[in-house]
Amino acid sequence: MRFSISEAEHKRRIEKVRKYLRKRKLDALYLTNGTSMFYLTGYAFISTERPAALIMPADGKITFMGPLLEESNIPLKTRFIEDVKTYVDYPGEKHPIEYFAEFLKDMGLAKKRIGIDNKAGASARWGYKGPPITKKLRDTKFVDVKDLVPSMRLIKSEEEITLMKESAKWANLAHNLLQECTAEGLWDVEVALTASYEASMIMKKTLGADYEPMRSSSPVGAGFRGQIGEMSAIPHSISTKHMIREGDVVVTGAGADVGGYSCELERTMIVGKPTSKQKRYFNVMVKAQEAAFKAFKPGVKCSDIDKATIKVFKKAGLMHLVKHHTGHGLGLEGHEPPWLDIGNDKPLQAGMVVSCEPGIYETGFAGFRHSDTVLITEDGAEIITYYPRNIESLTIG
Amino acid sequence: MRFSISEAEHKRRIEKVRKYLRKRKLDALYLTNGTSMFYLTGYAFISTERPAALIMPADGKITFMGPLLEESNIPLKTRFIEDVKTYVDYPGEKHPIEYFAEFLKDMGLAKKRIGIDNKAGASARWGYKGPPITKKLRDTKFVDVKDLVPSMRLIKSEEEITLMKESAKWANLAHNLLQECTAEGLWDVEVALTASYEASMIMKKTLGADYEPMRSSSPVGAGFRGQIGEMSAIPHSISTKHMIREGDVVVTGAGADVGGYSCELERTMIVGKPTSKQKRYFNVMVKAQEAAFKAFKPGVKCSDIDKATIKVFKKAGLMHLVKHHTGHGLGLEGHEPPWLDIGNDKPLQAGMVVSCEPGIYETGFAGFRHSDTVLITEDGAEIITYYPRNIESLTIG
Repeated sequence: MRFSISEAEHKRRIEKVRKYLRKRKLDALYLTNGTSMFYLTGYAFISTERPAALIMPADGKITFMGPLLEESNIPLKTRFIEDVKTYVDYPGEKHPIEYFAEFLKDMGLAKKRIGIDNKAGASARWGYKGPPITKKLRDTKFVDVKDLVPSMRLIKSEEEITLMKESAKWANLAHNLLQECTAEGLWDVEVALTASYEASMIMKKTLGADYEPMRSSSPVGAGFRGQIGEMSAIPHSISTKHMIREGDVVVTGAGADVGGYSCELERTMIVGKPTSKQKRYFNVMVKAQEAAFKAFKPGVKCSDIDKATIKVFKKAGLMHLVKHHTGHGLGLEGHEPPWLDIGNDKPLQAGMVVSCEPGIYETGFAGFRHSDTVLITEDGAEIITYYPRNIESLTIG
Repeated sequence: MRFSISEAEHKRRIEKVRKYLRKRKLDALYLTNGTSMFYLTGYAFISTERPAALIMPADGKITFMGPLLEESNIPLKTRFIEDVKTYVDYPGEKHPIEYFAEFLKDMGLAKKRIGIDNKAGASARWGYKGPPITKKLRDTKFVDVKDLVPSMRLIKSEEEITLMKESAKWANLAHNLLQECTAEGLWDVEVALTASYEASMIMKKTLGADYEPMRSSSPVGAGFRGQIGEMSAIPHSISTKHMIREGDVVVTGAGADVGGYSCELERTMIVGKPTSKQKRYFNVMVKAQEAAFKAFKPGVKCSDIDKATIKVFKKAGLMHLVKHHTGHGLGLEGHEPPWLDIGNDKPLQAGMVVSCEPGIYETGFAGFRHSDTVLITEDGAEIITYYPRNIESLTIG
């Protein structure tokens, strides 16, 4: 079994970029974004202060420029990077950007037209400092192509969809284990690590020798990020010191790395018998999500999905508890376009994959949010994540 | 017990920034970097495509500008953010940068001099797109102060050092558990998650009700990131599909979030009786690390530390196996300045905290790297991490 994008698909992606380069009369593409590099070549690396870039000439060898410590990993992970040019380390006796300028000269690109995703020529992580590559190659014509790869990523292929559906299975298992472990008196970290450990081991045993996570060190994870009790009202909580108590609303999250892709699965659970207020908020949230589910269809504006959930919240008199839009694209990054946001009138297209996660949050009380992964199909939508959404299934104990 | 930076120290940091602003005749500081914001206010948030910024006027209320979903969390986590101005979501019907421009006008800063760490006015994560704030406020004089907060972070205070030493204890426990669990036939993920789970639970039970991780959802973690067997030769490996085997060299890593700070602890371990080649490489690596330990002292150039390890590797005839410099600063980010790199002639100063991790990596054979966290003291250095470094202690079974 294969748990990553095929070589044939990588070839198609690369050919699409090259076609674009020829059309725009560009001699090469210069990428600094690690996700874009992974998308085209299947090579993932840990982004640090050390600059790295992928050079894809319109014709010529696809070349990775980066720190020496990446060199021996590349041939193990991809066949699409045909040449590797390195500097020892950052900052070095000579700045990496000086090396990059020389490498481009050596490749015959110094006086050419290069499409670039970031004029710095390096992703400025952590303590990185350096002059932009555009200042080092004065005779090169750099053209902004920031949107090129992200726009290719908007519509998922059959292979990408298959990986995301596989991811959804393991997120579902992890969430099941998370729910089974959730109990009064436990710390959310305890429940999260137990479920993640068990699900990861079962995933590996099931998928077998060839499986490994590609862009994270952990196969599958589920947890709460501190969204426990009153802290469930904090949509982007990071952690909590408090233990889970009877009466708590908890908000979860689960995902799994399959070929570098992940679904998003989140649920609101209630520890103990739900109060009538908890039930009311829960049911309004579910209704809002169902309204969005019904609205998904190619050609529908992204903003209309947001409006569908807003309508439900307004009707329930709970619009003042809404703290974010309905969802975002999914695939290789935590959030990616398209944004299911009132300000985004672009149409949904078949092959887009988005989260659907309308939520309400009352400070000092609780938060309510399910998130599901939704694939836009030719004639509607398919909900890829399938964990139960009803309050009875999500009541603990 | 307190497991975070005190209010008094946050006040000192803020006062230092304000003194700088007055000196440079700046009316405010505009920060987009989440680590810098945490450093000044103690507020950590999940950085996404949604722009967020901290405005610190020379006099006036410290203000967070960002997405609505952060609003209710802020007063729970910090007393130093005195005002919160929000937009609902990104991209929104009106772009967040338009809101930010208006907020700055409302604060009376539109025609003033503002120090800024990133002229975009937002950290460009994931799919964020937008015009730079500098184009939205044409009458504002923006001055680049990218280095201000990072330079403050270079020298650690007593409180920061205390937190990093506390972090070292828990990394030590996690590493002990990791070593105890490491065995032939297991997947590195299994060992990592088991050790991380157990160490996290003991850490919480020991530190008690007030402890929570501040910048990550996990208290303490240890693992291998796939650096198992031949893959140990890949310094920045992400994962491996292979199980641990007799004869493997494995390279580990451990850290713990105490008040948002972490130490760095890494070890090379050998599964089974070391071969003579493994012993030789291991001992050369240890010798290189000891050479660096001896060289640490205020006033010594960072490059001289790198030269001290290079000298050992050259003498052993193994310089061709060196793939990175000796180390980097530590504190709030995975890597931060100062760089212990041959190209960095800046002097070490008392209060700097750095990793010391000279390594050698032979492709197809194995990699050898210990990393310790070192505090530069008034008259030398103190090694904060104290896990055994000798081959006998690091041989499994």
